[in-house]
Amino acid sequence: MDRPEEEGARPSRRSVLWGGAAAAGVGAVALSGGDALIRSLRSPGEAVSADQVHGDRTHPFHGARQAGIATPPQAHARFVGVDLREDVDSDGVRRLLTLLSDDAARLTQGRSALADTEPELASCPAGLTVTLGFGPGLVERVDPGLVPDWLGPLPEFDTDRLEDGWSHGDLLLQVCGDDPLTLSHTVRMLLKDTRAFGSVRWSQDGFRRSYGAEPQGTTMRNLFGQVDGTVNPEPEEADFDPVVWCGEGAPAWLRGGTAMVLRRVSMDVDEWDRLDRPGREDSVGRRLDNGAPLTGEEEHDEPDLDAMTPLGFPVIAEYAHIRRARSEDPDERIFRRGYNYESEGDAGLLFACYQRDPSRQFVPIQRRLDELDLLNEWITHIGSAVFAVPPGCAEGGFVGQTLFEA
Amino acid sequence: MDRPEEEGARPSRRSVLWGGAAAAGVGAVALSGGDALIRSLRSPGEAVSADQVHGDRTHPFHGARQAGIATPPQAHARFVGVDLREDVDSDGVRRLLTLLSDDAARLTQGRSALADTEPELASCPAGLTVTLGFGPGLVERVDPGLVPDWLGPLPEFDTDRLEDGWSHGDLLLQVCGDDPLTLSHTVRMLLKDTRAFGSVRWSQDGFRRSYGAEPQGTTMRNLFGQVDGTVNPEPEEADFDPVVWCGEGAPAWLRGGTAMVLRRVSMDVDEWDRLDRPGREDSVGRRLDNGAPLTGEEEHDEPDLDAMTPLGFPVIAEYAHIRRARSEDPDERIFRRGYNYESEGDAGLLFACYQRDPSRQFVPIQRRLDELDLLNEWITHIGSAVFAVPPGCAEGGFVGQTLFEA
Repeated sequence: MDRPEEEGARPSRRSVLWGGAAAAGVGAVALSGGDALIRSLRSPGEAVSADQVHGDRTHPFHGARQAGIATPPQAHARFVGVDLREDVDSDGVRRLLTLLSDDAARLTQGRSALADTEPELASCPAGLTVTLGFGPGLVERVDPGLVPDWLGPLPEFDTDRLEDGWSHGDLLLQVCGDDPLTLSHTVRMLLKDTRAFGSVRWSQDGFRRSYGAEPQGTTMRNLFGQVDGTVNPEPEEADFDPVVWCGEGAPAWLRGGTAMVLRRVSMDVDEWDRLDRPGREDSVGRRLDNGAPLTGEEEHDEPDLDAMTPLGFPVIAEYAHIRRARSEDPDERIFRRGYNYESEGDAGLLFACYQRDPSRQFVPIQRRLDELDLLNEWITHIGSAVFAVPPGCAEGGFVGQTLFEA
Repeated sequence: MDRPEEEGARPSRRSVLWGGAAAAGVGAVALSGGDALIRSLRSPGEAVSADQVHGDRTHPFHGARQAGIATPPQAHARFVGVDLREDVDSDGVRRLLTLLSDDAARLTQGRSALADTEPELASCPAGLTVTLGFGPGLVERVDPGLVPDWLGPLPEFDTDRLEDGWSHGDLLLQVCGDDPLTLSHTVRMLLKDTRAFGSVRWSQDGFRRSYGAEPQGTTMRNLFGQVDGTVNPEPEEADFDPVVWCGEGAPAWLRGGTAMVLRRVSMDVDEWDRLDRPGREDSVGRRLDNGAPLTGEEEHDEPDLDAMTPLGFPVIAEYAHIRRARSEDPDERIFRRGYNYESEGDAGLLFACYQRDPSRQFVPIQRRLDELDLLNEWITHIGSAVFAVPPGCAEGGFVGQTLFEA
């Protein structure tokens, strides 16, 4: 069967098989969207059930860059901060990264980890990616001279209320995927690799829309109901690379990598709910229904920051989030890839962003927001961590290998 | 375009539009499987993007039975136990249930709640269901004479290590859906309805495979990697109704409803991992790879409990879970609809089951398991709650209405 059913027909689920190669093609059209990195574990001649559409999607682990950054954001993310034991030296770091890279390479391709105790749980990669990031504590074990000057706690912001238990860490495991069971299994296997080397400092779970619920490329909404992330470089566009990937100016071991800032932003949803709708739109400078700037009609319309109301006030207020986040300086851009969180009565945003150099990109933006952003009334940054995300590795290599070649 | 792309073609995501009615038909074939209850919010003539396949799936809220029981299990579940304030009387219960039913009816159909503060978050129902259950504390407010004899704490089992913070409750909100953002929003809206009437006693999150990751009808795996739930009545089969739905013998207000037992079963995955594979298979009586009984080849093969090894031992051991869970008594059957959980370093199973009468169905099974089940070495029941789940309601009515008509 390679034609759509007539409307109203209700075939039984077992009878719906699309044969072979054409089916794989349809699957890709139906769900993979613009994602050129998708491969299928399925051999082209294999018959597939038409209702199994995304469990076997994989992103390559090996390559010039780590996956999980330019990768279209998956539905679920777990960010785990690990502290290394004091006695882990350069050799220990190398062994740890070798183990992690090997298991990440397997698991992301739907194969069980080397010492996998539940190998059956690995068979549904569902777009899984594993991304490793290094805090200063890890890089120092290899060579203190290799720590980039921006790698460490960010400068303090007045509105910060940081908790140590959500901040810092020697090693970041960022695990993203479209299936929660696979994600749980993957994190468990990777944490087994880390056990002899360190302990979990924090673990943060995030979510977005599930895979296939909305068209790919729809900008996410946060728990305030706002369209969140409209102005963001697109991985397939020319301005992405210079914003995100470290190049000439960076330490040699980081070229092709990036710098990640992870902020845990608690959102007081109950207080926000007391505000009327115009007040909320005013505080951000965008409409709630479609995310359009208050001076435009569509989400991606350019805001007109000079537009005035008949009474002579700016349409987009001086304190509006989008005005404060904006910069004329082309250096002050970041790539956001955030997730909503909900945990023990608290809720908010895991604001994850990637850039070449946080001190020139994230920090000036956040400073402006810290000084004057009406949203600060309802949001509080309670966690903060910065990681150096090294480039990817070739097959047989490991992520972080470049640290040892410097 | 109403034919599959040629293999290898890679259309841009925005250009992939399947027109109108035929496309809606394809969507249903591709993902809805055997679920006859699915409706689409999409009008037949509307053009749809082919990568948007399940966000607008809805299950009817109104009907003879509440949704969320015979409904194919969605990827995510939240079970919330609410304690009513002491001053909530029969009228208060009625008002609360009216509010909850009204908002549940809206939200499950992709419409915003009556006083929705983030209406845009309601637009992607993704198979959402809301199911209400009543503890004895709620039924008593209406009329102590209406409390069924089984509605209350279960008898104690020797291996129980119950924590009050995971047990009991006056009102259960069971919210299941295939999108985590929708689920979060829905729970928040429903809890706003309960605020004036009570407070959250516990909240438990569960997960299964995401929608579309595996063919529908695949038996779930738990965090031990076991196929979990092979022997389970199928909603479309004749033996389902007498196991699950209350009939003649039940109080009139509960006919067409069911009784739910929710057990929080902590699983010591690390200790389990120390056991070798044959030992694990022996403890359950099933193969880990495909869930087949140790005397069979396929998952649904009937176990041969009399089969002996050449040395004269039973192939399926006396202490094996599937032998202990089994009964010749046709009354001792339950319908399971469980979810995995992971929370603050603990992990396990939210064992949710439904039956006419827990004292005749769940309790004898659990008593046999409590007495002798090798799995008890690695699992501990830490939470327990029983709820009466009333029948559904018609449009304009509310769930629990039958309590007031008794």
